[in-house]
Amino acid sequence: SKQYNIAVIPGDGTGPEVVAEGIKVLETVAEKCGFGLNFSYFPLGGDHYNATGEILSDKTLESLAASDAIYLGAIGHPDVKPGLLEKGILLSLRFHFDQYVNLRPVKLYEGVYTPLKDKGPEDIDFVVVRENTEGLYAGAGGSLKRGTPDEVAVQESINTRKGVERCIRFAFEYCRKRNKAKKLTLCGKTNVLTFAFDLWERTFNEVAKEYPDIETDYAHVDAICMWMVKNPEWFDVIVTDNMFGDIITDLAAMTQGGMGIAAGANINPEGVSMFEPIGGSAPKYTGKGIINPIAAISSAQLMLETLGEDKAASFIEKAVIKVLREDIKDVAAGKMGFTTQEVGDIVAEYIQKNF
Amino acid sequence: SKQYNIAVIPGDGTGPEVVAEGIKVLETVAEKCGFGLNFSYFPLGGDHYNATGEILSDKTLESLAASDAIYLGAIGHPDVKPGLLEKGILLSLRFHFDQYVNLRPVKLYEGVYTPLKDKGPEDIDFVVVRENTEGLYAGAGGSLKRGTPDEVAVQESINTRKGVERCIRFAFEYCRKRNKAKKLTLCGKTNVLTFAFDLWERTFNEVAKEYPDIETDYAHVDAICMWMVKNPEWFDVIVTDNMFGDIITDLAAMTQGGMGIAAGANINPEGVSMFEPIGGSAPKYTGKGIINPIAAISSAQLMLETLGEDKAASFIEKAVIKVLREDIKDVAAGKMGFTTQEVGDIVAEYIQKNF
Ligand SMILES: CC(C)[C@H](C(=O)O)[C@@H](O)C(=O)O
Ligand SMILES: CC(C)[C@H](C(=O)O)[C@@H](O)C(=O)O
Repeated sequence: SKQYNIAVIPGDGTGPEVVAEGIKVLETVAEKCGFGLNFSYFPLGGDHYNATGEILSDKTLESLAASDAIYLGAIGHPDVKPGLLEKGILLSLRFHFDQYVNLRPVKLYEGVYTPLKDKGPEDIDFVVVRENTEGLYAGAGGSLKRGTPDEVAVQESINTRKGVERCIRFAFEYCRKRNKAKKLTLCGKTNVLTFAFDLWERTFNEVAKEYPDIETDYAHVDAICMWMVKNPEWFDVIVTDNMFGDIITDLAAMTQGGMGIAAGANINPEGVSMFEPIGGSAPKYTGKGIINPIAAISSAQLMLETLGEDKAASFIEKAVIKVLREDIKDVAAGKMGFTTQEVGDIVAEYIQKNF
Repeated sequence: SKQYNIAVIPGDGTGPEVVAEGIKVLETVAEKCGFGLNFSYFPLGGDHYNATGEILSDKTLESLAASDAIYLGAIGHPDVKPGLLEKGILLSLRFHFDQYVNLRPVKLYEGVYTPLKDKGPEDIDFVVVRENTEGLYAGAGGSLKRGTPDEVAVQESINTRKGVERCIRFAFEYCRKRNKAKKLTLCGKTNVLTFAFDLWERTFNEVAKEYPDIETDYAHVDAICMWMVKNPEWFDVIVTDNMFGDIITDLAAMTQGGMGIAAGANINPEGVSMFEPIGGSAPKYTGKGIINPIAAISSAQLMLETLGEDKAASFIEKAVIKVLREDIKDVAAGKMGFTTQEVGDIVAEYIQKNF
């Protein structure tokens, strides 16, 4: 039977708690579907850094490179300077493995509270394809005369034709496969970021010619944010740059129920991809067993989809849908009516019994 | 009696329609309060550009410089390349007059529909202070090997200590004057934009020491967007850079009822400031008399506040509150139950009769 090597980075805070439930579900579904999963653990994160001074070693990168996928909990520690671990681990992994698409499905499941009025599951169902290796995340820039009244700080968004095109192409392909009205919206700011979005817009329009079956649309990032709360039903697939993608997917995540629900995938279609709930390490909930593991479980579903195990992935989604609709009282940490472990158990049991 | 010279740029699309109502209200309130307003008109915008090829001349800039304030309708024309007029007029004016603060009060008035569930006027009441002359709006950057597979497009965010500090200082001062819980939140992305927001954060923390009465807070822009739809009551005053300010104020505008309501001010406390509804030129509504003029009327209110005519400004606000609560059926264009002119009339009459 097929075997997959999964590198697990439980990470900081509540990361280990939610990852444990994801693995519980993965093991159940693998057994059902007849494939094998070998998990190896990597203790990256704040505690490891504080204990050893190591953030992310070449040796670790080599081991991760030998895996079929990476499954990550959360990165970020209250006793470490903000940004150090996020950049040193999370962003480093995205860049090192050239995971050029950050894929974030946004779906309001039945039974989940949305802060939007008059919107239901049929209205909130779209996907954001975020470029994940370029733009303002390049880390380019610098400071001149730092700490003086004359200081100038420059931050650069670097965009390459290759990087933009592969992301846009992925979005068109993804759009074609989606079982819904096929529309791809480019989210940019062509009227102000005239260099960066000139490249984006031109590339978008050129690639679009190869996909005559897909309707295309353009909107400025500011307008996208407005419509996302007023008319989310207008969206099908949205493609955008790294920074705008970061912003609009957090907004979108909130409309689908928040951090307890929102799953993400960092994808390199030809390499090692990484799957993570999009929430942070949530220090204040750590160790209490009250965090919602659904986002991590749905990220495991995205992992199986990317590995080509579609049937197994669909089992997870069906179980998640059932649990959200029938079991969990509220998706927020501490309000579920169950512990983190219990939610994992219910999902796993449902799969065990029903498929 | 005191006299003010107001330069009026009705601009494109529905701009002239809403500006006319703003002026109607301004004239009424000026008479009531005993000051004079002299309006001079400048025909900038798409039609003028198409007819004359002129975008914004030095002569016009000189005339505008001699005014006490600029009152602008909207810029943007369907027959002109997107960005040309926005950059050539709107952004040029903000930069030329060094209007370094873009001030956007966000207030849900009674009777106005918000797309947010379980939120009322007591929850949505904050102000965004957006830096308005720097950052990604500098227009800096370029393309290399444009149009080839090797193209690289760079867009730079340029931030100066002087520019950041004066904006942050304005925000603290504004916060102090606000008649509410006094909290100033810096909205940034310190964990990724490490050069730009290092300067912002350091400056914020330094200036904060001079304002011990004001509570300070920091949040990443992605988190701000989430909270803006889930917990808008957490905000009092938010200060941020140009690009993030653009994004979060459009989102915020939608929560307060949308483009028919949202007013904005481009402020240079020592120079000529400019006041504009934050919506665009709305070509599809142009000439129909159905656009909501309240955003323009409230922008006129901000103008009077900035000119120091607080009493007159408060009359406008009271009239707007009354009209939104009692008269208008819906704030959206075409759904008000009144024409654009009638809404202006009702506001003006209310002021005429009640103060
Ligand atoms: C933690 C941070 C660096 C990261 C990002 O900005 O990409 C996070 O917000 C996300 O969206 O995954
Ligand atoms: C029209 C555009 C250039 C402008 C901006 O981006 O500042 C607008 O969106 C605004 O917020 O006033």
